[in-house]
Amino acid sequence: MRIAVDAMGGDNAPSEIVKGCIKAAKEFSDITLILYGKESLIRKELTEEIGNIEIVHTDEKILSEDDPVRSIRRKKEASMVKAALSVKKGENDALFSAGNTGALLAAGTLLIGRMKGVDRPGLLATFPSLADEESVFHMIDVGANADSKPLNINQYATLGTLYSKRVHGKEKPTVGLLNNGTEDNKGSMLTKEAYQLLEKNTEIEFIGNIEARELLNGVADVIVTDGFTGNAVLKTIEGTAISMMNILKDSIYNNGMKAKVGGLLLKDSLKNVKDLLDYSKHGGAVLFGVKAPVIKTHGSATQEPVYHTIRQTRDMLSSHVLEELIEYFEQSND
Amino acid sequence: MRIAVDAMGGDNAPSEIVKGCIKAAKEFSDITLILYGKESLIRKELTEEIGNIEIVHTDEKILSEDDPVRSIRRKKEASMVKAALSVKKGENDALFSAGNTGALLAAGTLLIGRMKGVDRPGLLATFPSLADEESVFHMIDVGANADSKPLNINQYATLGTLYSKRVHGKEKPTVGLLNNGTEDNKGSMLTKEAYQLLEKNTEIEFIGNIEARELLNGVADVIVTDGFTGNAVLKTIEGTAISMMNILKDSIYNNGMKAKVGGLLLKDSLKNVKDLLDYSKHGGAVLFGVKAPVIKTHGSATQEPVYHTIRQTRDMLSSHVLEELIEYFEQSND
Repeated sequence: MRIAVDAMGGDNAPSEIVKGCIKAAKEFSDITLILYGKESLIRKELTEEIGNIEIVHTDEKILSEDDPVRSIRRKKEASMVKAALSVKKGENDALFSAGNTGALLAAGTLLIGRMKGVDRPGLLATFPSLADEESVFHMIDVGANADSKPLNINQYATLGTLYSKRVHGKEKPTVGLLNNGTEDNKGSMLTKEAYQLLEKNTEIEFIGNIEARELLNGVADVIVTDGFTGNAVLKTIEGTAISMMNILKDSIYNNGMKAKVGGLLLKDSLKNVKDLLDYSKHGGAVLFGVKAPVIKTHGSATQEPVYHTIRQTRDMLSSHVLEELIEYFEQSND
Repeated sequence: MRIAVDAMGGDNAPSEIVKGCIKAAKEFSDITLILYGKESLIRKELTEEIGNIEIVHTDEKILSEDDPVRSIRRKKEASMVKAALSVKKGENDALFSAGNTGALLAAGTLLIGRMKGVDRPGLLATFPSLADEESVFHMIDVGANADSKPLNINQYATLGTLYSKRVHGKEKPTVGLLNNGTEDNKGSMLTKEAYQLLEKNTEIEFIGNIEARELLNGVADVIVTDGFTGNAVLKTIEGTAISMMNILKDSIYNNGMKAKVGGLLLKDSLKNVKDLLDYSKHGGAVLFGVKAPVIKTHGSATQEPVYHTIRQTRDMLSSHVLEELIEYFEQSND
């Protein structure tokens, strides 16, 4: 399994990207990581020869402020573009980047290409379900599209179900539709129409509407939503969690000695909370519905999330979930 | 100022509603509270005569599972319906309820009626801004409508600005559009069109797009959004905050004696966090764009939130913000 890595994408590139790759390459002998980026910078971190790490030198890179579509069209020598084209040509099997999200979505859709039958690829993110420490749920679309149609949401349900089955080994993943109430007749024009399609979708285990308040309790294995709402919900979870941790920290530091000692005694507990909420250990967000795994991790990712995302990419490749989906969507379009 | 109170709405009605009303009536001699509900039950809490509390006996009530529009049309003797009609007739000046949200929205829109010129009333909620302990921000629409148009979002901006000015004394409230990126050209079809209108709106101080991740940092005084997204974001904030407090509690209880002692020492700090996030002290959600203040508090509200919401209703009435808005929208429609 050959994974093309955009070594120049993200706030901590290439250093943290390379470190995470080294860890993954050493642990998994069945993958080869092809690092696209400035060789001299990559070599600073990669001081030893590792059999399953290769470097492809590139001079250019896409910046976080670059216009997505324009940059992937014009910066033909950029690490992300070269990595994406290598996947398109079949030289490599998957694409990983911590860089400009919009550019990566464009590279996935325009360079690697959509699966036949999938109208609009969606971004799938995996979250910890707080019901118990082991379980997770997936939400799709968390922002690949600003406007989704009922048909897209129904396709996300099929994609998410297969991901949960094949990559996370869930036998009968349940699917919930993110909506503004749990009753069947609730919703916007979009969610009401999507509900109708989901009810008829025989590939999935549809359990009806889910309210955002219940999301983190693990009420469904797969949550489907339009890309605009999914994006808002994802960012609200992140923002609220970060804000709460900050208030708590401030409160510990500014409430005198008693609180400081309390904070010290609670250090492990607070770490637990942080760990449970840290969904980077579940890997990155998958652009789902393109011909190969295209996976994005946080721009601020350090070696640990990079490592987890490479692991996730390997899981996805070895599960052959995409081959199965390609076959399914081709058949349903015949 | 006469405030019609639906004494039978909410999980803790009428007991907690009446208690909150007693507190407010004693503190504010310039308001009269008219309690609509079962007299015998109300009298159980209201054991003394209070000059500025009146009771109007009603036999029926709207249940939380009742269909909103059908229930306000058919249950003509319900406490919420009688209270709403008293406002329509001008006997009372404002309506307060902790009951069925959909029914209250329907009662506000269909019984009390929209302001001339306001296409779709929106629900405005007030949140603590975590930037400092004093400041708040308002978000509108948090769920009165499942589908909003650009025109609606632009009207919410005007409504929210006047609310922030008159009720919270903010001189030049800033307005941000909730969007999937901060750049000017970002967004769905809806938010892109809304952006154009907001830029031209001379009544407001528009500062551009805001991402959900930044919301709680108080980046704008008024956040405008369509009712579907606003509802999802509101419920995500609530759900994430509750989940985090629960994990923290579990973590304190299940990590041995050291963590328990730490939790005890941190009790005040944890209470700070909870207090800061408890936005019920800022009152309830206002259905904005109808002819009189219609204010909803949480179904689970106890006497404290009820009291705060009555206080907020009084603030709204004494600010004469609605008279000002009615005049503004009438003029802009001439």
